[in-house]
Amino acid sequence: MQTSNLLNISKFVAPEVIFGFGALSQIGESAVRLGMKKAFLVSDQGVIEAGWAEKAIEYLKEVGIDSNIWCGLTTNPKDCEVAEGARLYLASDCNGIIAVGGGSPIDVAKAIAILATNGGQIKDYEGVNKISSPLPPMVIVPTTGGSGAEVSQFSMIVEKARQVKMAIISKSLVPDIAIVDPLTLQTKSARLTAATGVDALSHAIEAYVSLAATPLTDVHALSAIQLVSANLRESVACRTNLEAKSAMAMASLQAGLAFSNAILGATHAMTHQVDGLLDLHHGETNGILLPYVMEFNLISCVNKFANIAAALGVQTAGLSKWKAAEKGISSVRRFFRDIGIPERLSQVGMKEEHVQKLSLNALKDACLVTNPRDAGAEEIEALYLRAL
Amino acid sequence: MQTSNLLNISKFVAPEVIFGFGALSQIGESAVRLGMKKAFLVSDQGVIEAGWAEKAIEYLKEVGIDSNIWCGLTTNPKDCEVAEGARLYLASDCNGIIAVGGGSPIDVAKAIAILATNGGQIKDYEGVNKISSPLPPMVIVPTTGGSGAEVSQFSMIVEKARQVKMAIISKSLVPDIAIVDPLTLQTKSARLTAATGVDALSHAIEAYVSLAATPLTDVHALSAIQLVSANLRESVACRTNLEAKSAMAMASLQAGLAFSNAILGATHAMTHQVDGLLDLHHGETNGILLPYVMEFNLISCVNKFANIAAALGVQTAGLSKWKAAEKGISSVRRFFRDIGIPERLSQVGMKEEHVQKLSLNALKDACLVTNPRDAGAEEIEALYLRAL
Repeated sequence: MQTSNLLNISKFVAPEVIFGFGALSQIGESAVRLGMKKAFLVSDQGVIEAGWAEKAIEYLKEVGIDSNIWCGLTTNPKDCEVAEGARLYLASDCNGIIAVGGGSPIDVAKAIAILATNGGQIKDYEGVNKISSPLPPMVIVPTTGGSGAEVSQFSMIVEKARQVKMAIISKSLVPDIAIVDPLTLQTKSARLTAATGVDALSHAIEAYVSLAATPLTDVHALSAIQLVSANLRESVACRTNLEAKSAMAMASLQAGLAFSNAILGATHAMTHQVDGLLDLHHGETNGILLPYVMEFNLISCVNKFANIAAALGVQTAGLSKWKAAEKGISSVRRFFRDIGIPERLSQVGMKEEHVQKLSLNALKDACLVTNPRDAGAEEIEALYLRAL
Repeated sequence: MQTSNLLNISKFVAPEVIFGFGALSQIGESAVRLGMKKAFLVSDQGVIEAGWAEKAIEYLKEVGIDSNIWCGLTTNPKDCEVAEGARLYLASDCNGIIAVGGGSPIDVAKAIAILATNGGQIKDYEGVNKISSPLPPMVIVPTTGGSGAEVSQFSMIVEKARQVKMAIISKSLVPDIAIVDPLTLQTKSARLTAATGVDALSHAIEAYVSLAATPLTDVHALSAIQLVSANLRESVACRTNLEAKSAMAMASLQAGLAFSNAILGATHAMTHQVDGLLDLHHGETNGILLPYVMEFNLISCVNKFANIAAALGVQTAGLSKWKAAEKGISSVRRFFRDIGIPERLSQVGMKEEHVQKLSLNALKDACLVTNPRDAGAEEIEALYLRAL
């Protein structure tokens, strides 16, 4: 084997994937196959304005499926929003859940699905494998090339009282069908395109070096790294570059398959806390932290970091693994600069006084468990300070 | 995008995969999750003698699931065997189907599942998407590193009267859970190891150049080619080389994910007919035909064949795409010679008088549709004759 070792028993779960230009048109047939009669459609204002939600509703109507549309959520969605969505779902006669949108509406749709059949509050499900009853049928249509939530076992919800972003991780959260239509990426701003693309790259890199990586996740992680590095600049530069949009939609999907099954690492464990406290864009925070975490993790798996450099398109011929890996990390920094990602946490509002609390919370995040280098409070604090 | 184009809408389906040394121990929990009370376990004599079926039955018993074991099938399994299996399944009080074995018992288990809930005869389902009712829950444990049937949408059954191997292709044939335990590969003979490994390589190469290939199938196809070329010789050489067994189990799985979703090509369309007529080992026939079909297909996608050469470990630096591709094909011939695969169809009993009938049947095989180069009766006849 040329990739991660196979000494442990590993599991790999993926939804049915429908991919391609115009794939949104398959939403009606997909909902019918899952037995939906009326769909609870979760979206957000931007996606509704771009017309994608309406299109989905029309396709559903064509096959005789009515839908209730709901978009009462914000970026870094909150537990109270999930509770309200679940209340509305249960008060309706819907028997299936559809999300059309970015990571936020998708995560909320999944969280509503949990409460719909398992009851309680969303914080009851924080952590790994806390869901016992099967969820209603779910179809997910991502409209940003980044979250990978359309294929993942994750839902990230902020608990408002604690100002913490909770990771809810369970096989039940993999939707039944993911419909990925790259045309939907054309209506995003350059800034959102950059931030979500950086999120996809962070997923792929963290999944590839994760302690839970397997050969099945490795192939998707490396492919996603190649696709992002060859297409994200172009996608940020031009809304109508369909080749770049298609590649980024595929990159996001493959990074999703990788991290859903290999989990993530310190970058995400630390970003979740910043998201919870300051309500920033998850992708930008990841972009700031990722190069620092890569430097920190380097000694745990230099071969893997050299492979990442090659996948990033860095010329590694004739270089030692160490030199190649280091060039890879520099190229990530240069890449993020090219597309306007901030370089320091202080630029987005974080202050030194936040570091201690964020570090303590990061230590409890489920994503830290699979980080390839052991990290305690001291190491996490030092990383936050270095990136400040 | 660096791989197959994305202009069409594509679909990708995979079962839940549990992989690793000792993964067979997960069969009980898996059957419980699918609601099985009593399992109909399809296996074959060799697998039973090696003790794997008994082990599965014990694990099932531990979680309170009884099982009926049945192994009334032969290599290149026949329609009458499927009918008998289905009769026994329906006469029992089993509510789920498990296969523990190579491609033959797996294909039969799937075919029994079809008849169990859809009725009729198995030939009614030949071709693509002919299954209407959902199948009983299925758990598949492959014990040869080759067929990929544990993840595929395929079941191949011989119609005895016509001496034709029918391809039955449907999303419903993807099992719920695939449990891949590389330890089971240790009990195979060198000849069976070689033949099934060649089958995996044929799946990967045909899926990679298929007209229906997508970026998702490409990554698995190339990874499978790398794994086979780096591990099959070693796996044939030594029963207890666990690293090689694990790599071959992963190669078979990934080749299965690739061909299940990208379909195959002329090699398989032609091999199925030889299998139906002469009852040979499918992997060996594929091995004889593959290099001839690669030569024939070369002009349709030389870049892809150059990538195949690189994945095979051929030194391609400084070579033209053509030269690289040609070296790849030669290296396949050399590879198959090293592991004792016959080089000509005449060595395994085929005669010139068979060619016309086999060619006509190959033209009707579903796998020919995705072959990258158009092939009519004349071209198929010429290929059979060249390989005779």
